[in-house]
Amino acid sequence: MKNDSLKEIAEVIKKAQSIMLFPHENPDGDALGSCSALCRCLRNMGKTAWILTDDDVPANLNFLGEGMRTLDENIIEEPDLCICVDCGDPGRIEKRYEKFRAGRKTICIDHHMSSGFFCDYNYIDPEEAATGQIIFDLLRELEHKPDKETGEDIFAAVTTDTGDFQYSNTQKKSHLIAAELYDWGVDFNKVSVEIYENVRPEKIMLKNCAMATLKLMGGGKGAMVSVTQEMLEKTGASMDESEGLAQDLRSISGVEYSAVLKEYEEKKIKVSLRAKRLGNVATMAEALGGGGHIKAAGCTLKMPIRQAEETIEKALSSAIKELEQK
Amino acid sequence: MKNDSLKEIAEVIKKAQSIMLFPHENPDGDALGSCSALCRCLRNMGKTAWILTDDDVPANLNFLGEGMRTLDENIIEEPDLCICVDCGDPGRIEKRYEKFRAGRKTICIDHHMSSGFFCDYNYIDPEEAATGQIIFDLLRELEHKPDKETGEDIFAAVTTDTGDFQYSNTQKKSHLIAAELYDWGVDFNKVSVEIYENVRPEKIMLKNCAMATLKLMGGGKGAMVSVTQEMLEKTGASMDESEGLAQDLRSISGVEYSAVLKEYEEKKIKVSLRAKRLGNVATMAEALGGGGHIKAAGCTLKMPIRQAEETIEKALSSAIKELEQK
Repeated sequence: MKNDSLKEIAEVIKKAQSIMLFPHENPDGDALGSCSALCRCLRNMGKTAWILTDDDVPANLNFLGEGMRTLDENIIEEPDLCICVDCGDPGRIEKRYEKFRAGRKTICIDHHMSSGFFCDYNYIDPEEAATGQIIFDLLRELEHKPDKETGEDIFAAVTTDTGDFQYSNTQKKSHLIAAELYDWGVDFNKVSVEIYENVRPEKIMLKNCAMATLKLMGGGKGAMVSVTQEMLEKTGASMDESEGLAQDLRSISGVEYSAVLKEYEEKKIKVSLRAKRLGNVATMAEALGGGGHIKAAGCTLKMPIRQAEETIEKALSSAIKELEQK
Repeated sequence: MKNDSLKEIAEVIKKAQSIMLFPHENPDGDALGSCSALCRCLRNMGKTAWILTDDDVPANLNFLGEGMRTLDENIIEEPDLCICVDCGDPGRIEKRYEKFRAGRKTICIDHHMSSGFFCDYNYIDPEEAATGQIIFDLLRELEHKPDKETGEDIFAAVTTDTGDFQYSNTQKKSHLIAAELYDWGVDFNKVSVEIYENVRPEKIMLKNCAMATLKLMGGGKGAMVSVTQEMLEKTGASMDESEGLAQDLRSISGVEYSAVLKEYEEKKIKVSLRAKRLGNVATMAEALGGGGHIKAAGCTLKMPIRQAEETIEKALSSAIKELEQK
């Protein structure tokens, strides 16, 4: 399959009047920032446009798409166009997929490696550090007049998905976009404070609890922690506040692979996997029924937490052995 | 006083044969990255150049200036030129100041607000996000041929002093420099992994201990933690591994002011102060005999830790009251 051009996609968008945007489930800064920027642009063009999510979004990302997000599928009865943003897999908009298919036309805009071409029009580029960068280019095709708020959405998308310009996916383009956004009047520090300096003390307590379960394996090359329902009760934190642990593990000296296990329900353990320099967690996640990027991927295990810990420990250990044999 | 131009400073450098570089005490990524880049350039120009420190540097910054750093004052007997880098205050090169003054000529290159003009030639620009950015410009005046290693030094300086392009001091220029460094062949991820993903498990344990002392005040607008000698003994961590706590406190929702107290000796407590949106900790630090930037400053208190905690709690509380009255 081949990508349609952003020019073609812009033409399809221009012809539609009612448009619904679909970020992936458990949306992150890139998904929400990208949707927010695109939705703002569409509304400026005089279109009826909404971002449909199937869950509340994390508190620190609440400013993205504020007033443009909805949980109501019927806010537009029969949308001319449904756009899947930062998501190239129907499974990641599962609960909203029926509505998505009800769009007269569908578009997929994404940068994930494992994305398929499942829409009428598709633009998927795994080279791009963030979907926000593709949206930045698309806005130009849509002749969007630069403004502060849209710039802040784009910055939020790019800075979160590049790990603040530190991950290996960061491109020259990421910095050039950030530099250009200075001319849009963006208040960068405001965005950073919203995203990163909005941590509830409860989250800090949860992190301390989780880090106490730290298990190192394979001579320190693997690291694993768990977040349980019991910890949430004890600290008063919510599960989405366990975000960031994967990066903390990755930061430990010598660790090549890390895993964070989150007990959402008794037999529903979501696992975040990270690789530092050499490993590939996309393969590992796929083998466990999930997917993602080479350095950041995930899966869901339908088993009790202890069993999940054993499964992941085994997967990490064998990945470490493989690394050592290379 | 007025700055000399970088062109003039480059001329002075070109005429010198033996040059010593002086980063500030407890050197950070900007001080060491800037020295490393400049030293590399000077050696490429055929000069005898060394970076003189008065302490070992933090393990995660050890790659900056490797093979160019020394603790030996007499490595050059009578240097033609001494350059104070990322430091505009003789007090921050106190132990090496006599040697500094022994230079036939002296230069100061810095970006701190509280810097004075105490050298023969001075270039101090508080607008610059990092001294590394000034060095980037200076390298151009010195006709330095771009190379990977020097680029990595500059990136380390800029990314650490801008808080990974998140602090309010970050400029369009910071991103444009990072973008240009892609053409120098820099391995950005390598630098990030060195600086940020090199954390000993002992450091994580120390952080957990320190966060257990978290004290919120002024209705959650102030936050304070302490790191004591007892904690170092218990965890096996070193004091420089307590770095990063100030940022952790700043990240708590609602916190405007934060303080990290570090017990170096029984009556030598170093205090890091941070302000988030509205406050000015430079003034607070100066009142306590220290100095720094508006959003990040520090001081040293010569008293026992409990007394220091009281002193800082009082200073934070009155600063919070002032904020509320504004």
